[in-house]
Amino acid sequence: MANTQQMANAIRALAMDAVQQANSGHPGAPMGMADMAVALWSRHLQHNPVNPHWANRDRFILSNGHGSMLIYALLHLTGYDLPLDELKNFRQLHSKTAGHPEVGITPGVETTTGPLGQGITNAVGFALAEKLLAAEFNKDKHEIVDHHTYVFLGDGCLMEGISHEACALAGAWKLNKLIALYDDNGISIDGKVAPWFIDNTPARFEAYGWNVIRDVDGHDVGAVDAAIAAAKKSADKPTLICCKTHIGKGSPNRQDTAKAHGEPLGLDEITLTREALGWTYGPFEIPADVYTDWDAKAPGAKAEAAWNDKFAAYEKAFPELAAEFKRRMAGDLPANFGEIAAKIASDAHDAGATVASRKASQLALEGLTAALPELLGGSADLTGSNLTNTKSTPALRMDDKGAVVKTEDGQIGRHINYGVREFGMAAIMNGIALHGGFIPYGGTFLTFSDYSRNAIRMAALMKQRVIHVFTHDSIGLGEDGPTHQSIEHAASLRLIPGLDVWRPADTTETAVAWTVALSHKNKPTAMLLSRQNLAYSPKSEDALDDIACGAYVLSEPKDVGLKKKAQAVIIATGSEVQLALAAQRLLAERKIAVRVVSMPSTTTFDQQDVKYKKAVLPAGLPRVAVEMGVTDFWWKYGCAAVVGIDSYGESAPAGVLFKHFGFTAENVADTVQVALQNAGK
Amino acid sequence: MANTQQMANAIRALAMDAVQQANSGHPGAPMGMADMAVALWSRHLQHNPVNPHWANRDRFILSNGHGSMLIYALLHLTGYDLPLDELKNFRQLHSKTAGHPEVGITPGVETTTGPLGQGITNAVGFALAEKLLAAEFNKDKHEIVDHHTYVFLGDGCLMEGISHEACALAGAWKLNKLIALYDDNGISIDGKVAPWFIDNTPARFEAYGWNVIRDVDGHDVGAVDAAIAAAKKSADKPTLICCKTHIGKGSPNRQDTAKAHGEPLGLDEITLTREALGWTYGPFEIPADVYTDWDAKAPGAKAEAAWNDKFAAYEKAFPELAAEFKRRMAGDLPANFGEIAAKIASDAHDAGATVASRKASQLALEGLTAALPELLGGSADLTGSNLTNTKSTPALRMDDKGAVVKTEDGQIGRHINYGVREFGMAAIMNGIALHGGFIPYGGTFLTFSDYSRNAIRMAALMKQRVIHVFTHDSIGLGEDGPTHQSIEHAASLRLIPGLDVWRPADTTETAVAWTVALSHKNKPTAMLLSRQNLAYSPKSEDALDDIACGAYVLSEPKDVGLKKKAQAVIIATGSEVQLALAAQRLLAERKIAVRVVSMPSTTTFDQQDVKYKKAVLPAGLPRVAVEMGVTDFWWKYGCAAVVGIDSYGESAPAGVLFKHFGFTAENVADTVQVALQNAGK
Repeated sequence: MANTQQMANAIRALAMDAVQQANSGHPGAPMGMADMAVALWSRHLQHNPVNPHWANRDRFILSNGHGSMLIYALLHLTGYDLPLDELKNFRQLHSKTAGHPEVGITPGVETTTGPLGQGITNAVGFALAEKLLAAEFNKDKHEIVDHHTYVFLGDGCLMEGISHEACALAGAWKLNKLIALYDDNGISIDGKVAPWFIDNTPARFEAYGWNVIRDVDGHDVGAVDAAIAAAKKSADKPTLICCKTHIGKGSPNRQDTAKAHGEPLGLDEITLTREALGWTYGPFEIPADVYTDWDAKAPGAKAEAAWNDKFAAYEKAFPELAAEFKRRMAGDLPANFGEIAAKIASDAHDAGATVASRKASQLALEGLTAALPELLGGSADLTGSNLTNTKSTPALRMDDKGAVVKTEDGQIGRHINYGVREFGMAAIMNGIALHGGFIPYGGTFLTFSDYSRNAIRMAALMKQRVIHVFTHDSIGLGEDGPTHQSIEHAASLRLIPGLDVWRPADTTETAVAWTVALSHKNKPTAMLLSRQNLAYSPKSEDALDDIACGAYVLSEPKDVGLKKKAQAVIIATGSEVQLALAAQRLLAERKIAVRVVSMPSTTTFDQQDVKYKKAVLPAGLPRVAVEMGVTDFWWKYGCAAVVGIDSYGESAPAGVLFKHFGFTAENVADTVQVALQNAGK
Repeated sequence: MANTQQMANAIRALAMDAVQQANSGHPGAPMGMADMAVALWSRHLQHNPVNPHWANRDRFILSNGHGSMLIYALLHLTGYDLPLDELKNFRQLHSKTAGHPEVGITPGVETTTGPLGQGITNAVGFALAEKLLAAEFNKDKHEIVDHHTYVFLGDGCLMEGISHEACALAGAWKLNKLIALYDDNGISIDGKVAPWFIDNTPARFEAYGWNVIRDVDGHDVGAVDAAIAAAKKSADKPTLICCKTHIGKGSPNRQDTAKAHGEPLGLDEITLTREALGWTYGPFEIPADVYTDWDAKAPGAKAEAAWNDKFAAYEKAFPELAAEFKRRMAGDLPANFGEIAAKIASDAHDAGATVASRKASQLALEGLTAALPELLGGSADLTGSNLTNTKSTPALRMDDKGAVVKTEDGQIGRHINYGVREFGMAAIMNGIALHGGFIPYGGTFLTFSDYSRNAIRMAALMKQRVIHVFTHDSIGLGEDGPTHQSIEHAASLRLIPGLDVWRPADTTETAVAWTVALSHKNKPTAMLLSRQNLAYSPKSEDALDDIACGAYVLSEPKDVGLKKKAQAVIIATGSEVQLALAAQRLLAERKIAVRVVSMPSTTTFDQQDVKYKKAVLPAGLPRVAVEMGVTDFWWKYGCAAVVGIDSYGESAPAGVLFKHFGFTAENVADTVQVALQNAGK
């Protein structure tokens, strides 16, 4: 029989010691959650430390990520490739034990947490992905997808608004295999939470349709174990287990204080804590019997082997489905994706339709969702505006018992009504992508990318293939006015490191944007799309090929009947490309020869080699950028002038606004002419 | 006796007609909420249409701002300066009837709404401001501050995460004079909400400590009236009145459908609706008796006159308090603010202390909060980190009965523990500022400005004096790692039109930043502050004066012993100013003469005249910018090179990271040298 007290104390000791060694970190949370962790990790969690990528492992998410030493201790103790030296290197450069858990750095960490509320929201995405994959792939007596998603979370996560969005959806989706353990210690950084956090959290979660298990002693391993066992029986509801705990449990002077939260205990207090816990071992010293009690390698290997047998039987019975499951979980696109992509782009080019780029996106998605069953769309209550749904993506619905409703021909729902929950949508998409098996995309208005911004950032930091469909960009949105008109958003999204941003000008550019986004296995993408119609720009085969480079020469002086070389370059994006072409024609009448560069993706263009960049933007030619957004961004391309907007928009029809804000061919042409004069050319 | 049915139909007709005329807008919400509006506006709301600025008016906030025609109809009908022509001009350029309600454009509109969830959150700020002003200024038998805050909100607001943050705080603060009416029509843009919104909203709000009045027929004026009357009796809880309504009420074919939400009914359906409602008048035609029933000018004038008498008595009894109340509500700073500001800056200069700029901020705040009782601070659960509290700002607490706890010497709480609710804090601060009487400021880590971004934008759009204290900027944060290290945030905040952004380098710059921020009556400010200590930069009297210009010459070659003129300029902000000075010294050893420009506020510097700008950044000298953030922003100053970071940070001690990312004097000096070589100088 394992000594659960010692198992928990091992976590406490490692947490104290590592934080002390780093002279930085958060000892209180791991010390408080240690017993909960013993119950979950030693009695329930299905995982194999030797293979952190086993497809059917239970997922564990530490939503209160500042308690990172909890998960590092657990990973180390149960047998993951995280040796003691890494724990001694806590929070040091290039260690596997960063200040907050980071996916991709530490084996066994499923998602990067720290920004509060997002871990539980990711977990909702994990649990949804599991449920959908199970509905799609499981067959009678062949339950190859069958795991739980467990979350630890604290008061901070529960105060954050995103927890409301995520947990309301988990209830609506009846995610019964999502089990959250609430570390209810009554302390946040500012102290005892009573004056600012009076929520009746159990009642709140019941209002969301959750199964709530109240008043569990979080330091009683047996009680937590029993609660988890009960939670696993929930057939149609996610479960919240409310565990009363003491932050900094075991520390005579820090327990139950905010001081336990975010600073080392100090050597003296560590000594006192060791005494109080009866932990007689030195710093970073774990006795062999505790290691033995924690070791999950043998049971993990056994569990995975059993699943492998199961999968082998499935593979025999359903070879195509099995292959598809493997492909999907590996995140590989279909073998013929190149052809699909080429066809979608060339079809768009051949049709040359004048449509809004949000409609162009839907047209591209029709082909892509038909060919890629892993595409899982959605919208934050703007489906008919974002045009994220297609013929191949029925709306996701659950039946009364919590099962995924299937269409008559057996398809699962593939378009999610997220409700008015932009941030929740974005962080749930991160969870879906991290789980594997789906490529999530979701829509809202570009202005409301503000609401979801930190989750977009997290996708980029975590290198996840998540695609944001942001429609109704800039003042072309029209009458809804400045609250809904993105002005600074295109530029500010481009500043997020690792995020690809596309603002396509027509159907072909939009199609290419989609295929590039999908081909980036390790990168999120934001698509910025128009509400209003955009004319198609005829383009050469070369230009067609070059769209994927992010910027390309769309039109040369000869295309408007001038025989001279370009004297200047107009760079334009999205809806302003037509304006640039009109200005080019106007300038041609004035005998001024201008090249028009369409730059649907600055982030992609910036990745090209110097040769290509110079070919598109030759040295010495004055450049004028045109984009309906803040001008600050564009100076990086050495522009002589920028036609943009540095104020808020206005409520009026789009056409009126274009004129009001100077987005006319005349103004662009005049700006180019002045730039040429200033350059003495 | 007023004909309430016709009063409601007048709203419906105006909403239909205006949306039709604009061929754009949202008729369904105003039509659904018309009866609720009759109950509130004709039987409870204390307001004077002739003076929309009456200090003690009830505040009305339309949180579901897309229903803007509701409030425009109400303002027109009750007698505000909003003639019928403005309603006919709905959603047209420069009309007073923008697509969504905008404060400052339309008399009687208290806040700009549209981005869902923020209106109810603003309302929490309004109600808090009222409660605090009442506690501060009211005297026995002299209740000069005594009004309600009413909110209409819909399903969208309730799905948004921010509603959770705001309403939890409203419960914790026992804001009994906040009364929210929920337009429960069961429809959102994607259709009947059941599959994605199953919350038991009444139970949810009871879990927050609200008084909930359930199952009110939102089309029964008497029932809504009675519910409001009951709500006004709540002594210690905010009230949610759940009104069951029909979106598009009265439209035979659109009622209860998502189609009623966001498009004109069409002329045929409008005809049918007129018939169904028994509304026999033409477009924009309101019969005289309906105008009479709605007219609130006489009762409004009477109510304000009664309050004026009350205030006159108060003024007589407490002349100083009355004068202070007037000053505070006018948003005027104390007459001696100039002296206070000068002293704080010169004290900082004289002390020349080496402290973190977050500490410098607290030092400045000590003086400012002592002198300005309108400063109302707070933090999103990071008080000890943001250092937003001072000796003059006791923590805000409510007693069991809901009264504001006062200190022994009678002071109200002036520092708010917002809990872990960044977005909620920001939008509550907007409400506080809009109410008047306080200047709110609040802190979190800079990275989490992402969470509150749209509320920061709304403050700028609404021109409100709200000050954000964003500490722990960039990689100087150290071990907490990339989730907590702002990289793109300084640059992306600067892109928000109308937001002033300061990143001060030392105590004096921080003090000046605060005094400039306070002196902007119509502008929000973001202060970006360091976790780590920053050495004081000695500066000349001229330099001291110039800080307020946003950028100034901090050091010339002669200051490092070189007799030649500057050959290049290093521009630095915040924590990098010391680095720039070190590079300048290093370059001096290499006989290269460099000027160092400290640029704490690019947004402020950009407002200066050309002469000043040229004096600081002379033409022809190569410029190198140094900032621990994305480089894209800096090219606007014509830089030859930028020392920045275009990737995410890492978890490690700050000193290690500075070296790792090239923030060394050597690297900066070398970069300047290369820039000079490239420029052929």
